[in-house]
Amino acid sequence: MQPPRVIETCLYVDDLEKAEEFYSRVLGLAVYAKLEGRHTFFRSGDGVFLLFNPERTRKAAANGVPTHGATGEGHVAFEMGEDEIDTWRSKLEGEKVEIELEHTWPNGGFSFYFRDPAGNSVELVTPCIWGLE
Amino acid sequence: MQPPRVIETCLYVDDLEKAEEFYSRVLGLAVYAKLEGRHTFFRSGDGVFLLFNPERTRKAAANGVPTHGATGEGHVAFEMGEDEIDTWRSKLEGEKVEIELEHTWPNGGFSFYFRDPAGNSVELVTPCIWGLE
Repeated sequence: MQPPRVIETCLYVDDLEKAEEFYSRVLGLAVYAKLEGRHTFFRSGDGVFLLFNPERTRKAAANGVPTHGATGEGHVAFEMGEDEIDTWRSKLEGEKVEIELEHTWPNGGFSFYFRDPAGNSVELVTPCIWGLE
Repeated sequence: MQPPRVIETCLYVDDLEKAEEFYSRVLGLAVYAKLEGRHTFFRSGDGVFLLFNPERTRKAAANGVPTHGATGEGHVAFEMGEDEIDTWRSKLEGEKVEIELEHTWPNGGFSFYFRDPAGNSVELVTPCIWGLE
């Protein structure tokens, strides 16, 4: 018995407005829902990408949902098509996003690494690094 | 321009062996790769679910991949079919996993919340909460 997939991927940020602006502008993610000061939720593919302010989510929620909240640099990776590498490089450069690393993996996968405004490590990666199409 | 989906979802744990045992036994996830003391990677659907020891990932890696590493309780949610709620409840109970909360959402979605051995908040949720099928 195994869940078919991850449906919610989370990162924590100190400034939700800055982070929302970043993920909307740089990655083109669409806001699905938000609660000012607590969270901004985006759709991504057939799942969601959730940004939380850990100061808020560490406190008991009105609906009783369990607390959580991390500090420090998290990591997320989004898929990038093999034929989109140059387009993404131009996009990141055009948006003045500093590319921390361009990395070619032993199996031919390729990654861009950069930081969101909260310092989280964000990656765009071709799916072949995981043997995925 | 938008990435088609999240491909890597990460959590941080203090004890990789305990966490690997938990996610394998309770959620049936298959180990894809591991590096003792640094990470254990699982497949999940068409992406991967990555566990890292933040003590290690905060230090520079041999391959130069950027540092990251968070402390505190992270969160992840896996999909659960509408018709699997009772089966998952039995599975969690059978594996002696304490269900922290069973929650029915205003739109009819249903969640189980429980903790991994590192204290991360793990959820099984029916996709209708996000308007997803």
